[in-house]
Amino acid sequence: MNLNDWLNNEVPSIASNLESIHSEHFQVENALGFTGAEKIYAILHDFRFALFPCVCESVSGDEVRLNVMIANKLRASALDLRDLIIKVYLSADKQLSAKDAEEKASAVVMALINKFPQIRATLQTDVQAAYNGDPATTSHEEILLSYPSIQAVLIHRIAHELYKEGVPVIPRIMSEYSHTLTGIDIHPGATIGDYFFIDHGTGVVIGETCTIGAHVKIYQGVTLGAKNFPLDEQGNPIKGIKRHPNIEDHVVIYAGATILGGNTTIGANSTIGGNVWLTHSVPAESRVYNAPPTPNIAK
Amino acid sequence: MNLNDWLNNEVPSIASNLESIHSEHFQVENALGFTGAEKIYAILHDFRFALFPCVCESVSGDEVRLNVMIANKLRASALDLRDLIIKVYLSADKQLSAKDAEEKASAVVMALINKFPQIRATLQTDVQAAYNGDPATTSHEEILLSYPSIQAVLIHRIAHELYKEGVPVIPRIMSEYSHTLTGIDIHPGATIGDYFFIDHGTGVVIGETCTIGAHVKIYQGVTLGAKNFPLDEQGNPIKGIKRHPNIEDHVVIYAGATILGGNTTIGANSTIGGNVWLTHSVPAESRVYNAPPTPNIAK
Amino acid sequence: MNLNDWLNNEVPSIASNLESIHSEHFQVENALGFTGAEKIYAILHDFRFALFPCVCESVSGDEVRLNVMIANKLRASALDLRDLIIKVYLSADKQLSAKDAEEKASAVVMALINKFPQIRATLQTDVQAAYNGDPATTSHEEILLSYPSIQAVLIHRIAHELYKEGVPVIPRIMSEYSHTLTGIDIHPGATIGDYFFIDHGTGVVIGETCTIGAHVKIYQGVTLGAKNFPLDEQGNPIKGIKRHPNIEDHVVIYAGATILGGNTTIGANSTIGGNVWLTHSVPAESRVYNAPPTPNIAK
Repeated sequence: MNLNDWLNNEVPSIASNLESIHSEHFQVENALGFTGAEKIYAILHDFRFALFPCVCESVSGDEVRLNVMIANKLRASALDLRDLIIKVYLSADKQLSAKDAEEKASAVVMALINKFPQIRATLQTDVQAAYNGDPATTSHEEILLSYPSIQAVLIHRIAHELYKEGVPVIPRIMSEYSHTLTGIDIHPGATIGDYFFIDHGTGVVIGETCTIGAHVKIYQGVTLGAKNFPLDEQGNPIKGIKRHPNIEDHVVIYAGATILGGNTTIGANSTIGGNVWLTHSVPAESRVYNAPPTPNIAK
Repeated sequence: MNLNDWLNNEVPSIASNLESIHSEHFQVENALGFTGAEKIYAILHDFRFALFPCVCESVSGDEVRLNVMIANKLRASALDLRDLIIKVYLSADKQLSAKDAEEKASAVVMALINKFPQIRATLQTDVQAAYNGDPATTSHEEILLSYPSIQAVLIHRIAHELYKEGVPVIPRIMSEYSHTLTGIDIHPGATIGDYFFIDHGTGVVIGETCTIGAHVKIYQGVTLGAKNFPLDEQGNPIKGIKRHPNIEDHVVIYAGATILGGNTTIGANSTIGGNVWLTHSVPAESRVYNAPPTPNIAK
Repeated sequence: MNLNDWLNNEVPSIASNLESIHSEHFQVENALGFTGAEKIYAILHDFRFALFPCVCESVSGDEVRLNVMIANKLRASALDLRDLIIKVYLSADKQLSAKDAEEKASAVVMALINKFPQIRATLQTDVQAAYNGDPATTSHEEILLSYPSIQAVLIHRIAHELYKEGVPVIPRIMSEYSHTLTGIDIHPGATIGDYFFIDHGTGVVIGETCTIGAHVKIYQGVTLGAKNFPLDEQGNPIKGIKRHPNIEDHVVIYAGATILGGNTTIGANSTIGGNVWLTHSVPAESRVYNAPPTPNIAK
């Protein structure tokens, strides 16, 4: 068959077939409705503009009343986010009435945006931590304009608020967008204190039930993960258990270190060296380093 | 010289110079013609919509007849892909006639899209594997909307079909686009079974001649790579040799493990621990762990 | 309060609050002015087109006079870049007059674009290095169309020219854009010779004061970083010290190796094995490998 005939005669049934396979597993009219994850990315762009105006997107010359632009973006994205939260609520809870979903969703959106000034202030502590922690930078402006850590914590501090409110799915879409942009994978469930800085960042993984104190610095390739996880009677992992470590204040964790387990606590003011593999707690003020491997040097 | 004079007087000759250097090495009228890699990304977006409608892109309110939208996107992208495949065929084989290139390219495109329902069914096994393998997720919808593993295998399973048909260049453009989105680098030549899941994923490298069985789970930073490669008489690497490992069914490989070599086989039901470095085969049911390093803990 | 009332009554003051917190720390009218980092990305896209026409972006059918298109893109982006450099100069040096800033910025832009033919020639050596170094590729076209290493060095070689001229902030925005696209984090200060190739690349970090010779090959996850850094009397890191290693000609560094320190030099023709951790110099012709760990294999 030639291509044009095939396009006309066969593709429609392939398309119907694809739709029906997909809809068996993914209720398009539930989840986000006919809205893809990219809509969440657009909302994040508006929120980012509200928190960091003119850092990523440009403003055209005649729109320099920043507070008006910020308000407009907040209004539009608040309504969009409200609509999506309604959909995920109704999808997750078939008992919920449309009216109750709308009220809950509105309350969540208002609570989130009411916190934006506080989130912005916290992000400024993260900028300060980057400035203090990296000799390669020379200004706060440079950090805002170019550091992936700031993009990642910006999105995390928003997603975490929605996670705490129990909003399904949307916080994970946000965190995965951050992962795509930065190579830093922070589950929205993780609790992270002020003055947080991740240098370079690619390959960092921070698990759902982590708690991280204030003034913590992490380098590229660090995993704060799960040791293993118990299975239920059907052999499926049991959801919702504390699986990831606790990092206390003023800890530094160098590149490639792996710290695992829900009962593992790194005491305050500790330093964890590069590539260390740690599955148990260490007390405050610890210095944990691998015995330096002695590479074979042949000439 | 001031900038405006220089722009008018000097830039044209710089531009001509750049064009001629470039065209010495890159035959623009061959390769993809006057079409850049971004056209391939657009085709992948349409294919992704066909396989996962409304997961990434949104649908506007009055276009909710999904099967019609899927068919339209498939038709447009099929023709675009056909045209690009013709170009890479003609560029790679100067003996090929335009008519033969068109017939071959049309056949490849029809074969690919005819397989889409089967590819979609396989991807559903990958979604199931993610659900079974990650205690942090609570729904299939969340996996589709937010897991990089699904984006990476979606693109891989398409690119691999084109690779098997011997289409030059285009499969690698597809896999590299996936790498950009997810941090997961899977060569389109790799053969990967059902129920495949990569958790987190950043830094994963899966080489061209890998074979991976069913029900395999891999974590971030895993390399399935080449040990070394023989050079020909001119000192260039010899192309087309089996260089990458075989992973049998039901194997789990934890973060940062490195498995190298074309003769290396990881037997079924084995577990490879984090950061293990392995350049030889292990039998089925193996448990391979590094002796736990004893970090120095100073207080 | 219902959402609509809140949007009308409360959001304006939140927006004003956000603007004032932000403007305490980030002088919008300084830095890039009302221009976000995305404008720099757009300039890089134009520069990329000038160096590699039709590799990323497509050209529409009636615009096939490439040299004209290249010249037009160079002219537009030169003016945009000039304007942004003026802003960062004036922001960094309050003594500088607008006229001097404009003259300095124009000179920098002309010097940069005058070097483009030479940069393109150097990039061709990088393409050749990728071809020689990777048995998985079969053509130069494939490398240009799909290798992240080429994208990363393209941006680096532009950003490094601006860094050498002392342009603030903009080079780091460029390098971070490359990091987002490729997972490869090269500080614009690093000096890198011809025939440079990074295979796979995710997680590579190359620090500000690195010097890298010619014919160097690096694999994914390699860090060329700082050992530690001295603090000043206020406990802040001292800026501007040589902190990162020197890699001489014809060195190969395998995946996950970490080489640290400003006094660390890897002599010519050396090979550094996977996961090696090295904080001191090694002479030319060295072969440095970890003693192979003996994983426990239990059956």
